[in-house]
Parts: sequence; structure tokens; C-alpha cells
Amino acid sequence: MNQRSATKQVTLDEVFSPRGVAVVGVSATKLAFAELVVHALKGAEYPAIYPVNPKYEEVLDLPCYPSVTAIPGVVDHVVVNIPAESVLRLLDECAEKGVRSVHFFTAGFGESGYQDRADLEQEMLVKARAGGFRIIGPNCVGLYVPKSRVVNHFDDPLESGPIGFISQSGGHAQNIPHYSRPRGLRFSKVVSYGNALDVDECELLDYFAGDPETEIIAAYIEGVKDGTRFLEALDHAASRKPVVIYKGGRTEAGRRAAHGHTASLTSSVAIFDALCRQVKAIQVDDLDEMIDVLTVFRFMKPLPQGGGVALMGAGGGPSVLAGDGMEKEGLQLPGFSFDVQEELKQVLPVPGSIFINPLDTPNLATPEAICVALQVLGKVPEIDLLVYHLGFHPISRWGLGRLSTEDFLKPVIEGMHETVRENGKPVVLALRPPQDLDGMKEFLTVQEAFVQAGLPVFHSMRKLARAVARVNEWQGATSSDR
Amino acid sequence: MNQRSATKQVTLDEVFSPRGVAVVGVSATKLAFAELVVHALKGAEYPAIYPVNPKYEEVLDLPCYPSVTAIPGVVDHVVVNIPAESVLRLLDECAEKGVRSVHFFTAGFGESGYQDRADLEQEMLVKARAGGFRIIGPNCVGLYVPKSRVVNHFDDPLESGPIGFISQSGGHAQNIPHYSRPRGLRFSKVVSYGNALDVDECELLDYFAGDPETEIIAAYIEGVKDGTRFLEALDHAASRKPVVIYKGGRTEAGRRAAHGHTASLTSSVAIFDALCRQVKAIQVDDLDEMIDVLTVFRFMKPLPQGGGVALMGAGGGPSVLAGDGMEKEGLQLPGFSFDVQEELKQVLPVPGSIFINPLDTPNLATPEAICVALQVLGKVPEIDLLVYHLGFHPISRWGLGRLSTEDFLKPVIEGMHETVRENGKPVVLALRPPQDLDGMKEFLTVQEAFVQAGLPVFHSMRKLARAVARVNEWQGATSSDR
Repeated sequence: MNQRSATKQVTLDEVFSPRGVAVVGVSATKLAFAELVVHALKGAEYPAIYPVNPKYEEVLDLPCYPSVTAIPGVVDHVVVNIPAESVLRLLDECAEKGVRSVHFFTAGFGESGYQDRADLEQEMLVKARAGGFRIIGPNCVGLYVPKSRVVNHFDDPLESGPIGFISQSGGHAQNIPHYSRPRGLRFSKVVSYGNALDVDECELLDYFAGDPETEIIAAYIEGVKDGTRFLEALDHAASRKPVVIYKGGRTEAGRRAAHGHTASLTSSVAIFDALCRQVKAIQVDDLDEMIDVLTVFRFMKPLPQGGGVALMGAGGGPSVLAGDGMEKEGLQLPGFSFDVQEELKQVLPVPGSIFINPLDTPNLATPEAICVALQVLGKVPEIDLLVYHLGFHPISRWGLGRLSTEDFLKPVIEGMHETVRENGKPVVLALRPPQDLDGMKEFLTVQEAFVQAGLPVFHSMRKLARAVARVNEWQGATSSDR
Repeated sequence: MNQRSATKQVTLDEVFSPRGVAVVGVSATKLAFAELVVHALKGAEYPAIYPVNPKYEEVLDLPCYPSVTAIPGVVDHVVVNIPAESVLRLLDECAEKGVRSVHFFTAGFGESGYQDRADLEQEMLVKARAGGFRIIGPNCVGLYVPKSRVVNHFDDPLESGPIGFISQSGGHAQNIPHYSRPRGLRFSKVVSYGNALDVDECELLDYFAGDPETEIIAAYIEGVKDGTRFLEALDHAASRKPVVIYKGGRTEAGRRAAHGHTASLTSSVAIFDALCRQVKAIQVDDLDEMIDVLTVFRFMKPLPQGGGVALMGAGGGPSVLAGDGMEKEGLQLPGFSFDVQEELKQVLPVPGSIFINPLDTPNLATPEAICVALQVLGKVPEIDLLVYHLGFHPISRWGLGRLSTEDFLKPVIEGMHETVRENGKPVVLALRPPQDLDGMKEFLTVQEAFVQAGLPVFHSMRKLARAVARVNEWQGATSSDR
């Protein structure tokens, strides 16, 4: 019983809010993608999960069905991990059941290099069009929509956030939310679209451009099939929201891998770069940089109004390196005037202090000194951004152990908020990840406290500088040209 | 009783093996540098520690002496943290006691910008020359010599290693050993020399060039006082051993900080860069890169004989990014010939595999597949370096949870050693640091296993590529020109 006319197109909003999910090809004896999805959906308390495999009656403590059509309840979304050879029959079942979307984790289609597999993809598309449902992939991890409790990894948070992420790679679709989670980034929808047989980067960009739940768009793209259409979609999206892109396959080796990976004929890097410049999309050099740029957009409120930075923190050597790192990326550290230096000297101890920019005084590991320095420096007109850097070598931690973590954090966070409010300038924390377990425990506590307070945290001065430089360039680009 | 004629110069080897250490200016009520040094020396079981402060009879459970001359035993090295105003009298005591070296943590001398403090430094130097002892600093953390159990931080390992490190910054003198410790780097001697009043970078470079315990020299330098002499020392050292340098204060902000930090008149960056190129010293862009380059020299045995890299690991997107990262830094990923591809297909599963470079097959998370791939690829003439990359997103960990960490690591490490032995090509692991505590636990276990086995571990593909590119450039430079 086909519940829907083949002519009525399923919207992406419908795809992103399924009332039931079938997972086809689950096994009771191994733990691979399909089983992990069931596990993740259970963890997310998604209410209607239907494992499908004629071999089993139960999988992961859930009733298992012999086919999609044998499922008693409504099934809107189907996750598939069965061999490519069996997919056409499955799609007939999906049509009969009246599903809205089918996601193929299964690989070995167009990207395999075999013509018969490329032809098979086209047959799948014909069946989807005829059956009135959409295909995600093949060769991808599909959907992560926290609001709908649709997850593909046990570790996916269920809080939504303002970032929409489209990723041609399944690995990156899981890695970006995973690695950015402790930095406080959360997502409206993440869509891994693999070979882009049906739902592709253009449709997704259009969707996110208009999605009220999405304020910032991120994209990992290996190749596009229609350059003109892509330019149109990217332009449309980037004129409405910041779009942050990594183009996978920028080099010969990356291109070879991208073709093998998602059958992408990666277009000329020069052309892609020119397109992005033209429409003011922000290109990044790797996925860590993507997380940093997203952190700027998400948590620097307001965005910096220029490239003048005041750095402060304890430690001479680290200050030198911090200054080098900032200016290498094109930001400036304006010198402090005589008056500003005098004001600092009134409140910070003179011996062992260096009243320049970067500001390095021995007690800059105390909350009082940090707050006072923020107050003074926040009012300097040449300063657009205030950065407090906190090394994690134990000796420099919390004023040499005089304060508990909590006693340190509370007044510092209050002082930072006050500076932001009073001066309209962003304040950020630069916090170096440690390499040992004890350090990591404290690092995570501190990071979490700042992130919970809505403050941006970066893991290196240079990465912070680079992300701010990218956003400043974009602000110049968007404000002068639009 | 001055035990030594003022004309007999104390050697650095004598400075590095003191028979007794006095720590002047310790407090029984706070925990700052001097107290942390006593604490660290106790932890290292250094046998003759003498706290000095007329106010106390006991500090940290050790007898405390009113003056250096009141100490009953031999004192060769004195660590000082007292106000600059009191140092001249202390130096008279040191002369009387017949010490070999005095290290001033105390800051507020030449770097303070006050002429009287710069003059004071010169008086200190006169007293040291007359008293026949050496000065380390002022404004630094001094010595870390594991063989002698002389430490300045509770976290310093007591194993020695082949790296000698000189650092104008005390922070970096502690950070580099701390952050490189889990990567397996160990040091012969680390000397933080601050304002370089007496012992300076030139004398230290000369020392390390001739030191049989040092195979690789690392240096963090903010400024040099005598360019000609420095060039001579650097040339001498770099012609004997790899010298890896970070020049602090490369930018305007860094220079301002460096001048305030160690009174360094940082010379022109262009001139410094030219000097380094001329003598084949290896410059790095930051201290993480320093650790990476040191890791190449320490653990890639043999060094790669060219820039051809074979990458392998599971995950399409990560492979694309890895390929991009490698080629961005100037390495090459040669394509595999038909024969090599056929050989790989014999042993690795075909569905879902991509038999190109980077090699990505779904079971490349199993030891058998890794070992087989290493065997096949190690014999390819165009390949100089084999890289296995292991993401730490849980889904990709250890073949989706089928193996225990130990069952995975043992055969992989054996396979890597065999490949190195049979083909004379280095094999490395690229392992992404996780952002959560559970991940960090497993990460540290895995890293430790590889490091203990003498295999190099890097934390990103791009950083690995950059470090190898630096060393390859140096190899070309040293082999063609010397």
C-alpha cells in the first residue's frame, strides 16, 4: 500500500523528522554500522526503531522484522547496510511501504569505478523517483538531527544548535560534531550525503539557507557535479548566512582519494577558490580550522570590529610566541600608550611585570589581576579583541596552586562577561590542551566552565589568530560588497 | 674559605654535575619557584639539597640554613630567588663558599629597562669572574640534567636522552620536555639561560656540539648579543649535529615581548634566517613543530631517503584530508602500479576498498591487514616513508571493538618493525589526540606502546608532513653542500 502519490515531492523537513526508522541489514552477531545506528537510536530514546533482517527475531533487544513491509508501524526513514546487489528489491519494498527517505551506508556504487555499479545507481534513482521517496547517499552515514532524536553515532549530543553541516564524507560528518562538542558547538542538522545520487550539496545549501534553525552553514565537499548550479546555491546561502567550506581533494593525492571515495570529479581547485571568493564563502585549510571559524561565529558576540588584539597571560616565553603567532596570521598587537601603562601599574605589581602588549605580569594567574587588566584594556580604542592565554604546564596553573579551580573560574568568567558588556568587544580564552591524563581532567573542567558561560575557547594562539583573520576578512568582504 | 683559584675556569660539565645544591630564598609559607625546585629535587632524590633562608630552621622537611656559608657540606650549585637588591651580598657568600655556579631565577635586571638594574648585572658578572664561578641567567629556570638528578620541575623525567636543549625562556625550557615526554623525547641537558649575562647561547652551542651525550640540539633563542660569534657557534654545532631552532620575537609584537622578557635586542629576522640557511640549522615555526622535527630525528631510523609517502588507514574522508595535508607540505603520494594494486587485492577485501594511495580499506583497522599492506607497500621503490593513520573517533577504533587494545597493538608493532628492518624505510603512526577523557586514556595507552617500541608518533598528518619536509630539506642541504 503506497501511502503517497509519486508526484508529491517529499520535503527535506519531512526527511529530517521521521516518525519511524527501519535499519536494514542489522546483524545479531557483529557490531558494525547498522548495529551502531540501532544502538545510537536506542541511546537517544528514538521512539520507533525497527531492525530488519530475515535471519533474526530480535536484535539488540528489539523485535527484528524480515522485511520493511513486515513492519507494523509507520516507517518514514530507512537506514540500509546490505550488499549493493540486493538494493533494488529493497527499494521496491520501500516504495510499497511508502517511506519518505532511504539512506544507504552501503558503498561500492559509482565510486567503485565499475560501470555496472554506476548503472545500478541510476536504476536506484529511477525507483526513488517512481516511489516518491528520497535517497541519501549511497556511501555515507546519513542523518544526525538532534531535535528529531535521529542519530548515527552513540556519542551524538541531543541538544540542537545553530550550525547546519553538510558533509560528503561520513567520517567527517561524525568527526566535526564529535571534536567540536567540548568547544560548545551544537548542530541543527548534519547530513552526510556521500555520492550525492539524489539529495546533493546544492539542495542542502538551499535548505540550510532558508532553515530558521540554522544560523551558520558548514560544508565538507569533495566534488560538485554541476558547477553553475553549485555557484547559484552557494551564492544564495552565503548571501544569507556565513558559509564555512573545506574542499576535500585540493591536491593530487587528495583528488585521487576523493574520486575513489565518492566518485567525485573534483573540479579545478583554482576555479573552486574563485567561486568561493566571488560569493564570500569562507574557505578553511583543514577541519580543525573549520571548528575554530565556527567557534568565532558561534561565540564571539559581537564579532571583532578590527584586527587589534590585546594579549595577556603569565609567562615571558609563551608571550613572545603568542605575539609571533598573532602577527604571523595578520592581526596586530597595538602598543599600549603611556597612560594605559600607568593605569596598569596602579593595579598590577611592578616587579617582574612587563607592561607592553602582550601583557605579562607574574600575578596574571589571579582572577583580580585578570579582571583589572580586562577593564583597563577593554577601553583602549585600538583593541578589538581581548585574549587571555592560560598555559597548562602545571607550574602556571591557578596562581601556583593557591586557588581551587572553581575559585579561579567564577570571578574570571564574570569579569570577562562584564568586559564584553561594557565595551562591546569579544573576550576569549586560549587554553593549551595538555598531554597527560591529570592535565586533561582539569583542562576539560576549565573548558567546560567557559563554554557553558558562552565564552569562546581556542586551543592555540595561532589557530585563534587564523580563525579571527578569516572572519575579519569575510566581514570586510560582506560589509563592503553587499 | 674559597676552595678554588679565581683563574681556573669552571667547565660546563662541572656546572652540570653539582655535588650539592643550595636553594636561596625558599619560604616555609608559600609555594613559588624556589620551593618548587626543592620539592622537585626531593622527588628526584637528589642527595644534597640545602634550603637557605635566615627566617626558618626547616623548609619542606629539610634543615634550612641562614646563609650559603653556613651550609656544612659541599655546595657546587646555587639556585636563587631573592630580590635583585640583595644579590651582590649573596655573591660574596658564594665566592667564599667556593661554589661552581649560581642560577638566578630572580628577574628585574637588564630586561626591566632601568639603567641601575643593567649596571647591577655588570657588577654581578665582575663578582662571578673574581669568585671563579659561573652565572646562569638571571631571569630563567636554570638547569635540568637528569643524569645528575638536577631538576627544576617536579614533572621532569630522570631518564636521559640524546637531545640537548637551550632555551632563553624558562617557560619553554619546562614546556618542551613536558609536552614531548609522552612522545618519547628525553634530554641530555636542558639549560634555560635567560638574560645570558655569563653562560650564553654561544657557549652552550659549543658545549652541545662536543657533548658525547647529545646527538640532537634544540634551541629557543630570542636574541643574540654578538652576531659574528653566534654564527661561528651555530656553524660549528650544525656541522656536527642537527640543530633545530625557534627564533622567538619574529614579529613586531614578539620582538616587543622578547625585549621586555630577556632584554634581547632581537636582530633582523631576515638576517637570522639567512644565517640559519647558511649553516644548515633547521628553523621551525613554533614549538609544536620543534617537537615534531625532534621526533623525526630521534625515532625515524633510518631517516626517509626522499619525499614519497604511502598512506594507509580506514576512512574515506580522513584519507582525502590526509592526502591534501601531505602534498600541501611538499611531500608526494606516488600512485600504485597495476601490479601493486593486484597484490593488495589478493590480500585485502575488494568491496569498499580503494586501492590507491592513500590506501583505504574497511578492514585497515585489523592488524593482519595493516601488516600485509606494510609488506606490499614497503617494497615499492617510489615509497620512502610508510604512514599508518588511526583516527580516534570511537567508531573507527580497533576494528569496531572486535579487538582489545593489546591484541591490536602487539602484531601491528611487530609488523612495523619488520617492515623497517626489511626495507630500510621508516614507518610511523599518525594518531589524532581526542577531546574527551575516555578517548585520552586509550590514546595515551596506544601512544605509549608505540613510543616504548621506538616508533615515531605524530598527532596530525599535516604536522608529520611538515616535519618530514623540514628534515628532507636539511638532508638535501647537508648532503649536497658538506
